[in-house]
Amino acid sequence: MFEQIITNVRNNVPLVHAITNYVTVNDCANIILASGGSPIMADDINEVRDITAISSALVLNMGTLNERTAASMTAAGKTANKCGLPVVLDPVGAGASAYRNKTAFQLLEEITFSVIKGNISEIKFLAAGEGRTSGVDACEADKVTEDNLKSVADFAKAFSKKTGSVIVITGAIDLVADKDHVFAIRNGHSMMSKITGTGCMLSAVAGSFVGANPGDIFHASAAAVCGMGVCGELAYKRLCELHGGTGTYRMLLIDEMSRLDEKMLEEGAKYECI
Amino acid sequence: MFEQIITNVRNNVPLVHAITNYVTVNDCANIILASGGSPIMADDINEVRDITAISSALVLNMGTLNERTAASMTAAGKTANKCGLPVVLDPVGAGASAYRNKTAFQLLEEITFSVIKGNISEIKFLAAGEGRTSGVDACEADKVTEDNLKSVADFAKAFSKKTGSVIVITGAIDLVADKDHVFAIRNGHSMMSKITGTGCMLSAVAGSFVGANPGDIFHASAAAVCGMGVCGELAYKRLCELHGGTGTYRMLLIDEMSRLDEKMLEEGAKYECI
Amino acid sequence: MFEQIITNVRNNVPLVHAITNYVTVNDCANIILASGGSPIMADDINEVRDITAISSALVLNMGTLNERTAASMTAAGKTANKCGLPVVLDPVGAGASAYRNKTAFQLLEEITFSVIKGNISEIKFLAAGEGRTSGVDACEADKVTEDNLKSVADFAKAFSKKTGSVIVITGAIDLVADKDHVFAIRNGHSMMSKITGTGCMLSAVAGSFVGANPGDIFHASAAAVCGMGVCGELAYKRLCELHGGTGTYRMLLIDEMSRLDEKMLEEGAKYECI
Repeated sequence: MFEQIITNVRNNVPLVHAITNYVTVNDCANIILASGGSPIMADDINEVRDITAISSALVLNMGTLNERTAASMTAAGKTANKCGLPVVLDPVGAGASAYRNKTAFQLLEEITFSVIKGNISEIKFLAAGEGRTSGVDACEADKVTEDNLKSVADFAKAFSKKTGSVIVITGAIDLVADKDHVFAIRNGHSMMSKITGTGCMLSAVAGSFVGANPGDIFHASAAAVCGMGVCGELAYKRLCELHGGTGTYRMLLIDEMSRLDEKMLEEGAKYECI
Repeated sequence: MFEQIITNVRNNVPLVHAITNYVTVNDCANIILASGGSPIMADDINEVRDITAISSALVLNMGTLNERTAASMTAAGKTANKCGLPVVLDPVGAGASAYRNKTAFQLLEEITFSVIKGNISEIKFLAAGEGRTSGVDACEADKVTEDNLKSVADFAKAFSKKTGSVIVITGAIDLVADKDHVFAIRNGHSMMSKITGTGCMLSAVAGSFVGANPGDIFHASAAAVCGMGVCGELAYKRLCELHGGTGTYRMLLIDEMSRLDEKMLEEGAKYECI
Repeated sequence: MFEQIITNVRNNVPLVHAITNYVTVNDCANIILASGGSPIMADDINEVRDITAISSALVLNMGTLNERTAASMTAAGKTANKCGLPVVLDPVGAGASAYRNKTAFQLLEEITFSVIKGNISEIKFLAAGEGRTSGVDACEADKVTEDNLKSVADFAKAFSKKTGSVIVITGAIDLVADKDHVFAIRNGHSMMSKITGTGCMLSAVAGSFVGANPGDIFHASAAAVCGMGVCGELAYKRLCELHGGTGTYRMLLIDEMSRLDEKMLEEGAKYECI
C-alpha cells in the first residue's frame, strides 16, 4: 500500500521547508535528502513566506523554540495554509514550560496542521491543555501499551476530529489516526531513543512524504512512521554486525533511509487497522 | 572509586539543561544520552527558568555566545542556584573578545558554579582578568607540562578557593581541583583535539555526572574527565582497526561513551592526587 | 602545483572565522580542522570585529541567514577588509527570497570578497540581479555542461573582473575564475549532492586554504575545489567497500580531508585551463 507513496517522494523530490531546532537540524536535513526530498531551513521572518511559497511542505518543530522563530513559524504556517501546502507540527516538549505551552496553543489556533506528531505526553497536553511532560520524553504513566491501546486510539481519533489533523503518537507502539481510522504500527527499535533527534527526523520525513503525497496525508504519514521504524530495525541489525554504539547507530539510521525502497518498506511495515 | 558515580548516572537518568553553542550542540546532546543522562537544550529567556527548575543540572557553554542567550544563561543560572542544582560553566574562548570577557565575568559574579571547566588559557584568563587566548585553543606558552604541574595545581586550588567551584583544566594532562585537593589525570588522546567539540562534550558529560551526584561534585567531575579520556583512548584503538579519519573518530567517541561501564571506567582511569 | 598550498595550510594552521548557518556548522568546523585549519564560529555583533581581527580568513555563509547575523556579517567583513584578510562569500540560496537577495547585494556592495562560491544559479543571480533559484540547488536549465562550458567561463571571468573576486561555480564540472584565467575542474562525485553541507564545507575549506595562502587566492581556491572533489571521490570508493549509505558518506568525506596530503591532492586533481 505504501509503494506508491515512496515512489512519489523519489520522483517528485519535494522541497521541504523546516523551521526547526538547532540540536538536530543537520540530521533532519540529511534524512529529508535520504528520503528523497530536498530540505531548506530558512527561519527569518523576512523570508519565511517566500520560502514556504516555493516549497511542497512545511515542518514546524518546537525544539529550542524562541521568540524570533515562533513568529516565523506563525508567518510560514499561514502562508502554507493559504497556498494549500501540507504543514507538519512537532510540538517538542509541549507541557515542559509555560512559554512552550502558550506557543503551542497559539500555533494550533492560527494554523491548520495536516499532521501533528508527538509522544503521548505531548499530544495529551495539546489535547487537554494540561499534562505531565518532563523534558522531551514521554512520562512513564502515559505510555501506550497493549492494554490501553484502544482507549488511546479513541483519544487520537477524537483529537483528529477536533483539529482536522492526522495525529501521530510515537512510542513503543506508534499510532496514526484520522477521525475515522487508526493504524497501530509496530516498527522501530528501542535503540532509537538512545540518540537525540529520531522524533525530529520522523517529522522531517513526514514533511517529505506528505509533500509528495498531499492528496493522502493519512497514508503518507503512516508510511513515514513505518519507514522510520523499518530503518530503525535495519540500522540495529547492521549495528550488531559492526559492533557499534549510539554514535554509529545515528549514522546507520540515515544510511538505511537512503537505501529504503518500495519493497523494503512494503515488506517491513508492520501496521494494523484497529 | 568512580564506580558508584557512573552507576548513579545510569540509574538516575539526570535531566541536563544545556544552554550551549550551535556548533557542537548535537554532539553534546548525544553524549549526554550516551553517558546515561537526558538532554534538554532550551535557551529562550521566557522558558529557561521553567526548564532549569525541572532539571538535575545546568550547563552553560559560552561558544557562539550572543546577547539573547547570555541573558538566558544568567536567568537559568540564578534559578539553578535558587533550586540548589549543580551548574557547570564552560567559558569557551574566554579571552578572545572583549564581549566574551565581559560576559564571562558577569556570569562569575552573578552565579555560583559547581564546576568551571576550560583549557589553561581560558581558566587563567578568568582567574587573572587578563590572558592570551587566541581562538578557542590554549596558547602554547600556557600549556600544562610535568615541569609546571605543581604550580598550575596550586593556581587551580587557589582559584577554586576564590570561586567555591571545582576547577577543571583540560590539556594533555588534565587537572581537577577543589580548594584542598588536585587530581592530575592522564587519560585521553591527542586525536581528541582534531575534532570540534570534545571540550563541549566534556562539560556536557560533567553536567550529567554532577547532576546524578550532587553531593560529590569533586569526584563526579574527576569521573567525567577520566570517562571522556578513557573513551578517547578506546575510540582511538577502534579507529586504528577501522582505518578511519577524524569523521569516524567523532562517531567512535560517542560510541565508547554509550558503552562505558563501571569496570571500564575504574580500570581505565589514570589519576593521581598531587 | 597545489602541493605548496596544502603544505602552507598544514604548517600555518589558519584561524578561520566563519559566520555560517546552523544546519551544517558542525561539518564546517570539523572539515576546517581536517583541512589543517582552526575554526571559530562567533556571530554576535558585539564580538565579531574582535574575532575577525585575530583570524587568518573570514567565511560568510548565507544559509539560515537572519537579521542578527546579517549585521554581524557586514561588521566582520568590513573588519576583514580593513585588516587585509581574505573573505569568502557563500551566497546560499541567493535568488530564493527577496530578503536573501537584498542581503546578498548589500554584502557585495559593502565588502570586497576574495572568493565568491556558489552554484551556477546563485552566481548568475548575483551577477544579473535576477535568476531562477528554487531552494538551495541549481536549476536544471542553468547547469554547466561540456556544451556551455566556454560561455559560462567567459561569464565567470567577466563577473570576476567586475567584483575583483575569484569566482567559484560548483556543479558536475566546477569552474574557478579570475579575470584572466579559468580552471575547469572535473573532480568530485554525484553522491556529494545526496548529503547536506558539501557546498558549505567547500567554502569552509576555501577559507582555510586562502587563509594560509593570502598571496595566491586563485590557486588556493582551485586547490580547495580539487581537494574537496578528490575527498568526495576517495570517500565514495571507501563507501563501496563499507556498503554504507549517505550517513556514512558524510563521515567519510571528513575522514578523507583529514588524510589528504600533498601527493594525494596533486595526483588526484583534475583541472585544465580553458
